[in-house]
Amino acid sequence: MRSLEQVIREIKPPDEGAMAVARARQDTLTKPLGSLGRLEELSVKVAGIKGEPMPGLSRKAIVTMAADHGVAAEGVSAYPQEVTAQMVQNFLRSGAGINVLATLVGAKVIVVDMGVASAMEPHPALVSRKIAYGTQNMARGPAMTREQAINSVEVGVEIAEKEVEKGLDIIGTGDMGIGNTTPSSAITAVFTGEPVAKVTGWGTGIDDRQLAQKVKVIERALRANQPDPNDPIDVLSKVGGFEIGGLSGVILGAAAHRIPIVIDGFISGAAALIAAGLSPIVRDYLIASHISVEIGHQAILDYLGLRPLLALELRLGEGTGAALGIFLVEAAAKVLTDMATFSEAGVSQAEVGKD
Amino acid sequence: MRSLEQVIREIKPPDEGAMAVARARQDTLTKPLGSLGRLEELSVKVAGIKGEPMPGLSRKAIVTMAADHGVAAEGVSAYPQEVTAQMVQNFLRSGAGINVLATLVGAKVIVVDMGVASAMEPHPALVSRKIAYGTQNMARGPAMTREQAINSVEVGVEIAEKEVEKGLDIIGTGDMGIGNTTPSSAITAVFTGEPVAKVTGWGTGIDDRQLAQKVKVIERALRANQPDPNDPIDVLSKVGGFEIGGLSGVILGAAAHRIPIVIDGFISGAAALIAAGLSPIVRDYLIASHISVEIGHQAILDYLGLRPLLALELRLGEGTGAALGIFLVEAAAKVLTDMATFSEAGVSQAEVGKD
Repeated sequence: MRSLEQVIREIKPPDEGAMAVARARQDTLTKPLGSLGRLEELSVKVAGIKGEPMPGLSRKAIVTMAADHGVAAEGVSAYPQEVTAQMVQNFLRSGAGINVLATLVGAKVIVVDMGVASAMEPHPALVSRKIAYGTQNMARGPAMTREQAINSVEVGVEIAEKEVEKGLDIIGTGDMGIGNTTPSSAITAVFTGEPVAKVTGWGTGIDDRQLAQKVKVIERALRANQPDPNDPIDVLSKVGGFEIGGLSGVILGAAAHRIPIVIDGFISGAAALIAAGLSPIVRDYLIASHISVEIGHQAILDYLGLRPLLALELRLGEGTGAALGIFLVEAAAKVLTDMATFSEAGVSQAEVGKD
Repeated sequence: MRSLEQVIREIKPPDEGAMAVARARQDTLTKPLGSLGRLEELSVKVAGIKGEPMPGLSRKAIVTMAADHGVAAEGVSAYPQEVTAQMVQNFLRSGAGINVLATLVGAKVIVVDMGVASAMEPHPALVSRKIAYGTQNMARGPAMTREQAINSVEVGVEIAEKEVEKGLDIIGTGDMGIGNTTPSSAITAVFTGEPVAKVTGWGTGIDDRQLAQKVKVIERALRANQPDPNDPIDVLSKVGGFEIGGLSGVILGAAAHRIPIVIDGFISGAAALIAAGLSPIVRDYLIASHISVEIGHQAILDYLGLRPLLALELRLGEGTGAALGIFLVEAAAKVLTDMATFSEAGVSQAEVGKD
């Protein structure tokens, strides 16, 4: 396994040349200038990420990472912890939302056990990289050791790189982990500086009393652990989760290989905060698929300078929003590569000056 | 050809029973209650439209109607009128935005000449239903006769019904017509009661001076013609267009056969206003794909009580937004039909009360 430092060094800024060529081509396609709005922007971004003025996006994958959280013992979720393992089984049997949407967009789903709290039966479609049987309760001490934090990120890098070796054009991120909006809110509060109450939401559907309790638990975790926002691995180890660390590794690994990364909702956003803390350039590789109902998500996107493509009031996770986002990125790229130019089509251009 | 009155009588409200079954099923699927947000809503709407609790959406079509506008003589567009015919050729050669996006979502494109101002060569993929060689200049009198208006709507009905006969699950609308934001703004002003300046925009890209001129032209057309908002055919004939009339017919014909209709942007919205004027029930069959950059579009969606799925700053027309919308509707339906239930998957449900 390569060291994290090596991977981070390999992440280079997007290719301005490819972006300029893509932008110029957009202006020659048979449509009024700029009339495909954000699809045009997105196509240029993807050209820059891939370093190709005519990027193809046929090989798609979504990495859905699962793990449990010691902090679930504090009653922060509406669901019992066993649901994490049950939903992993559901992913493996293709019964979950992510399976349905990934199939629709032609993406494969890579299901990874990063730290589910129970033993998982081996399964050909399950990547077993359990760091531990769930994190420790962050309300009482660090969620994991620093070594475990680094290890979780490195596992994510490795999984992204394995897909790159097999052939990959675009990757999406997804998560499963009962209680994982709690560490995600903690991470968001640490990086953005927002008060915990402003970035903590209802998760899978707790009530107001439980929400107040969840805010207190996170505040207690931050007081007890004092995570250092200038040290993303410190934040991850103290108030993070194994799937969050893994997804930040997926982001870094994909960026190092110039693969566009479509991030899902709040938990993937927390992983993106860790990744962007380790490599600020990584922001240019991120595409925000949607804005989640979970209230802390907007703070993450603002902090990362990302604008979501969709606002469909999703709050499922798993990579479901990322799957929809991958479709829009593919649409954007297809417009760029497949539309006819004015001269190819023999269509007259605008009579007024280009604005 | 059936009379418009017959078709309008056949449009019945959505099936509440199918909607109730679909809604109940959503609550048994392996995800937190309501966590797929607008996709869940959309799946229930489609179930009601189709009268099927588990609707399939495999057969998709987008009808892209083209026509010219006499009012183009007033300098309301950035492009010369010949572009309408050139773009129809581009559609037939699969070089346009709508071809690229329809291919991506697996929808066929039905290109209809409703009234292009020049003779079009016959082509196997071109449906020739030219009402006239463009409308008359509405700034100086009615755009068309009442008979032409009725005829254009009936042609649209017929085209929708032909597709239904071949097998159709969902339909999208699209337009091409240099100058056609001008009649669309006029129609919007008539139905919504908004001042012309508030519903008139830059179209394909005119400048501020041309925009001021465009507003004056529309105001003159409304003064000269006095269209009656209580008589949608009167509005269509005085300040409409052949593609707009045709698309309102497509909407009515599809609704009569319980086919969900994904409407594109501003011009399709104007067609929806005519259709909803003829049959208020039709609103329940409409799905707004996106909110256009064209400023009058929001007024249309508000008037029709529709909420757009996407906000991607599109302003191309052709059905491009509808194609993207069809993808989201299909995603919504697939979630409803293909996801496992809690009991099928053996996943535990929430511990807290359902909210």
